[in-house]
Amino acid sequence: MRPVVIVDPPRADPEVVAELGALGVATVHEAAGRTGLLGSRLRPVWPGARMAGTAVTVLCWPGDNLMIHVAVEQARPGDVLVITTTSPSGDGFVGELITTALAAREVRGLVTTTGVRDVAAISRARFPVWSQSVSAQGTVKATAGSVNVPVCIAGTMVAPGDAVIADEDGVVVIPRTDAAAVAESGKRRAEREDEARAAFARGELSLDRYGLRAELDRLGVTYVRANPGGTVRANPGGS
Amino acid sequence: MRPVVIVDPPRADPEVVAELGALGVATVHEAAGRTGLLGSRLRPVWPGARMAGTAVTVLCWPGDNLMIHVAVEQARPGDVLVITTTSPSGDGFVGELITTALAAREVRGLVTTTGVRDVAAISRARFPVWSQSVSAQGTVKATAGSVNVPVCIAGTMVAPGDAVIADEDGVVVIPRTDAAAVAESGKRRAEREDEARAAFARGELSLDRYGLRAELDRLGVTYVRANPGGTVRANPGGS
Amino acid sequence: MRPVVIVDPPRADPEVVAELGALGVATVHEAAGRTGLLGSRLRPVWPGARMAGTAVTVLCWPGDNLMIHVAVEQARPGDVLVITTTSPSGDGFVGELITTALAAREVRGLVTTTGVRDVAAISRARFPVWSQSVSAQGTVKATAGSVNVPVCIAGTMVAPGDAVIADEDGVVVIPRTDAAAVAESGKRRAEREDEARAAFARGELSLDRYGLRAELDRLGVTYVRANPGGTVRANPGGS
Amino acid sequence: MRPVVIVDPPRADPEVVAELGALGVATVHEAAGRTGLLGSRLRPVWPGARMAGTAVTVLCWPGDNLMIHVAVEQARPGDVLVITTTSPSGDGFVGELITTALAAREVRGLVTTTGVRDVAAISRARFPVWSQSVSAQGTVKATAGSVNVPVCIAGTMVAPGDAVIADEDGVVVIPRTDAAAVAESGKRRAEREDEARAAFARGELSLDRYGLRAELDRLGVTYVRANPGGTVRANPGGS
Amino acid sequence: MRPVVIVDPPRADPEVVAELGALGVATVHEAAGRTGLLGSRLRPVWPGARMAGTAVTVLCWPGDNLMIHVAVEQARPGDVLVITTTSPSGDGFVGELITTALAAREVRGLVTTTGVRDVAAISRARFPVWSQSVSAQGTVKATAGSVNVPVCIAGTMVAPGDAVIADEDGVVVIPRTDAAAVAESGKRRAEREDEARAAFARGELSLDRYGLRAELDRLGVTYVRANPGGTVRANPGGS
Amino acid sequence: MRPVVIVDPPRADPEVVAELGALGVATVHEAAGRTGLLGSRLRPVWPGARMAGTAVTVLCWPGDNLMIHVAVEQARPGDVLVITTTSPSGDGFVGELITTALAAREVRGLVTTTGVRDVAAISRARFPVWSQSVSAQGTVKATAGSVNVPVCIAGTMVAPGDAVIADEDGVVVIPRTDAAAVAESGKRRAEREDEARAAFARGELSLDRYGLRAELDRLGVTYVRANPGGTVRANPGGS
Repeated sequence: MRPVVIVDPPRADPEVVAELGALGVATVHEAAGRTGLLGSRLRPVWPGARMAGTAVTVLCWPGDNLMIHVAVEQARPGDVLVITTTSPSGDGFVGELITTALAAREVRGLVTTTGVRDVAAISRARFPVWSQSVSAQGTVKATAGSVNVPVCIAGTMVAPGDAVIADEDGVVVIPRTDAAAVAESGKRRAEREDEARAAFARGELSLDRYGLRAELDRLGVTYVRANPGGTVRANPGGS
Repeated sequence: MRPVVIVDPPRADPEVVAELGALGVATVHEAAGRTGLLGSRLRPVWPGARMAGTAVTVLCWPGDNLMIHVAVEQARPGDVLVITTTSPSGDGFVGELITTALAAREVRGLVTTTGVRDVAAISRARFPVWSQSVSAQGTVKATAGSVNVPVCIAGTMVAPGDAVIADEDGVVVIPRTDAAAVAESGKRRAEREDEARAAFARGELSLDRYGLRAELDRLGVTYVRANPGGTVRANPGGS
Repeated sequence: MRPVVIVDPPRADPEVVAELGALGVATVHEAAGRTGLLGSRLRPVWPGARMAGTAVTVLCWPGDNLMIHVAVEQARPGDVLVITTTSPSGDGFVGELITTALAAREVRGLVTTTGVRDVAAISRARFPVWSQSVSAQGTVKATAGSVNVPVCIAGTMVAPGDAVIADEDGVVVIPRTDAAAVAESGKRRAEREDEARAAFARGELSLDRYGLRAELDRLGVTYVRANPGGTVRANPGGS
Repeated sequence: MRPVVIVDPPRADPEVVAELGALGVATVHEAAGRTGLLGSRLRPVWPGARMAGTAVTVLCWPGDNLMIHVAVEQARPGDVLVITTTSPSGDGFVGELITTALAAREVRGLVTTTGVRDVAAISRARFPVWSQSVSAQGTVKATAGSVNVPVCIAGTMVAPGDAVIADEDGVVVIPRTDAAAVAESGKRRAEREDEARAAFARGELSLDRYGLRAELDRLGVTYVRANPGGTVRANPGGS
Repeated sequence: MRPVVIVDPPRADPEVVAELGALGVATVHEAAGRTGLLGSRLRPVWPGARMAGTAVTVLCWPGDNLMIHVAVEQARPGDVLVITTTSPSGDGFVGELITTALAAREVRGLVTTTGVRDVAAISRARFPVWSQSVSAQGTVKATAGSVNVPVCIAGTMVAPGDAVIADEDGVVVIPRTDAAAVAESGKRRAEREDEARAAFARGELSLDRYGLRAELDRLGVTYVRANPGGTVRANPGGS
Repeated sequence: MRPVVIVDPPRADPEVVAELGALGVATVHEAAGRTGLLGSRLRPVWPGARMAGTAVTVLCWPGDNLMIHVAVEQARPGDVLVITTTSPSGDGFVGELITTALAAREVRGLVTTTGVRDVAAISRARFPVWSQSVSAQGTVKATAGSVNVPVCIAGTMVAPGDAVIADEDGVVVIPRTDAAAVAESGKRRAEREDEARAAFARGELSLDRYGLRAELDRLGVTYVRANPGGTVRANPGGS
């Protein structure tokens, strides 16, 4: 990899990003055809954190946070840092000094596949951070990497300028050029979910609302009354 | 596996279930002869959650929550859904729509070896959920499974109608026909624990209270005064 | 291993331990030359927990907490129990009865590579505990182990009497004879961090403050303006 | 758990067990309706191992192999030991001394969720063993457990006398009373697989043989000719 | 995700792919600037397997291998199937029937983040397969996915037509348009490695050959003669 | 950590090391009182590998193998390199070039908690290597570490000059000053194991040989004849 910093990539429209943020991760992921989730291992450092912004990507060497310092300068108001490493590394790549610098630049938050530290201070400052672990293990600044190149996290590609939405359900990334269409679709989906929630609260069954009884028949699911005194084996299998 | 829904299995006595719930997971597990725990990976979605109810079991295909919709209809007031999959799957099988439907039916809570989503909404609604992970990854409704068949989770069999107790220590399951005896034993155990706690708070040593000094002698444990300036190797082994 | 209990090992100076505790885990770890961290898997049982004390080490057999009962008697005010097992074991080695006894002896807290239980009660009592998991699974008292022998956790050796500092960033251990020097170095480091934090809050860049631009040049990092309409591959590699 | 040894449980018919063994794990698992697999973590200690027998189940305490010594006496020619622990334990519960004793009793092999040791000697002796890990870590003989009680491994219940089939694909367990029906179904399945294999070797497509083209249409899968110079995003999603 | 099958994408030049295959995974990865490796979890099913080809990518739903059947038809002589799922799934997505069909089409091999089964038969047939696990757990054919869309595995993007090289060191992927340059660079690198190997076999030190002594000085590494009777702490840290 | 290279530490007696090597890992671990095992995750790169030597320890930064080059110069005939990192790192720290240099210096083998690469070449050369993973991912040479300081691996401290024994059961380390006593004890143990093996091959039961029947009585284990038609629950627990 030739180390490179891509300067000033195009960003997703901030208004669209805000709309996606209002919808939340689960709805956006569904509206995008069930794509874009950065797996289940990125968790918020403090409960209740949520954010939306445009990606500044950072690719670091394991145990080395040099390129995060480069990325801070590249970040603009409304951005989100998305950090990963060339091989898995759980050290504390980010602490309070870096989040203070990011907050001063009106960066919205930070997502990293590494660990973070100073979590008490970050939580008090209410700076939104999603990480894979918490670790006080320090890093060096000795090896080059890249900023604003596409990276892959948990099966999803993140390009600079993409929309990044994060809340307690995780982190979802929508390609910059798809953001408006996904936001539109997401709003319609949110309305349908509101109606479904109200129906379920009244006692309606999803079997009926989604028309699943016919599907169960097609799949051969049979209903059998329990034999009150009987005993069932763990594997009701058979030929 | 022939997909089957067992309708109306016998349930553990609700009063006994409530007694077990009052004792809590650790005491019930001990009273049951140190059996019944569903491992250490099922964690409450929100701090402070606790519940007790009777099991409605659900066996799903990975990435597919069809049978949970079937189970909602089978659940009665006082029940708890216990969900697992035919092979490990961490996707978001359950979200706010399903927990809203369950709450409307006076279901007590939900335990799943999969992931869950909409955790902010579930937490606000105070619906008790224990899961192995949080994930916004959506599921399909395309493959059959079973409801109210016995399932195995972390070495413990869960049959429909069994008593399910959950709190911040995890989830424990007591066979329906053992529930009364375990509750009785648990109450006696809780009394002994209260006395021990008071004794330890006064400074009594468990070495004395439990008569362990003789056991240490039998096992050859020796006491040696430290050599203040000396250095000890990590492995004080020998032949 | 011949089972042995080392009685009354020398402890780190309590005033120095208190100074280290005030600095916190991340700063102490850096001041010690980035050593001493007990990995990233030990997490506080309740948010906000922090403590500092001198180590009483406990080496148990898997599934067996006998030696913890021995260690309680060896612990003095200001100590911290540091528990591990001869092979990995996630059972609930410690519960409310043991933490009650430790609190009665003015022990500062407890660190264990095993699981713990009764976490609701431990949290209410605000007794500081760091563990690798939560599990209600009970243990027996049948096999000997040792107290106050050196143990290894996550690549770090812990000797009896060492300084143990823990907060939300994890647990760090400083050898008894290094504690004063590390505390001195840590205080100077904390001052430099305060100044850096203030500078970053004013918008100064770490690239400038730490003189990293020359390092980036040396490493061949190049800055390239984005091609607004272009597309970049995930791997901008090449020969 | 009251420790108990169930003596002389009924076994699956040895001829049926032999038929299942000839079919192999993958075919038997499919013939049983895709049930009975003991997960993907049990691996043969030496390449090429395969066996079939009737289960003698063993439930041990972590780090303690006492009950395996009890189980050896309960085992008859044609049996297979199936060992697990009350909580996860990777120690070396079984070594060459135990496999020598088992071979002397014409036991067919051994399956354990723990570790094993002396693997060079076990491999030379060609005694079939499936385990989750290899570890030389020794165990004690201090805590009671049970023999020939039902146990749960990776979501599957194993009862004493059940048919246990193992090869390089893993381990599958068929309930004693289902064994004959599954063997019958498995033989028919094996014939169909032979025919399919021959067809595929001739170049027939599974899309045609299994009639999947209509299913793809129903699911909305579309075929698109590649744009030779174009670039595709990682997530071709969208609403 | 709209399910789509991209037909006939451009492939890397077969001669260049063969050159990369001759270099092997470690050399190609280095020649590509240390990029392109698909992590450390993909292992060959049988020892000694190695292959090189052009990628046909497959994106499946967990527990569902429908799209692999679609991909078989898309594969041409010289191709390699690269399979992953929308969320992690370790089931046996591929067995002997599918590898027989692939071999009949002169496909070079198969890489999957899932499990595989029939490994005895696959090994006998010497069909090259890299997978994350072995599992007999069967899959369904019920949910759509995509073929020949870019996928991300372990931080690396794989596009259809890319060069895929695999041996006992793992799997590396080189973008189609970089393949010739990486092969050229790799050949020069292999020559340098041959010279270095010969030098090291003669006893030359890498410290000298790579000029590392000056670097050690710059980094402050000091050489200290051992105190024969002394004892060193595990953490030779300091301020 | 101040980076330091300890030159010429005292080594365990080569004859004693050879005796320990002849006994093998499992016997040595038992003879040392069940201590010294480096966990269950270090596996031989090729089947049948075994070795014994004296430790040269190496502590590297994650993703950086600089100090291994330093260690090669420190190694003498009969030594074994024992490599670990300051935080977990699975990259390919060692390949054929380094093992060629080590073989030229008559080093006996290599143990590393990292990954290794060029495993086909290392296997052909029959150079003994134990590692936690295989990975082609390259490393840099940019950050200092230490050679011949004590390190901790999986709960065991390894000091320079200690005896290191490795075979297919894993890796065990015996402190230099304990080596002779452990070898003596191990020889006696091996004789007892030979006698026990012969007895078990003749059909003697370990229950009798080890006098375990009385222990079972003391622990309350009861024998119950199976009810041929009956059904047993998975949890034969009770109060």
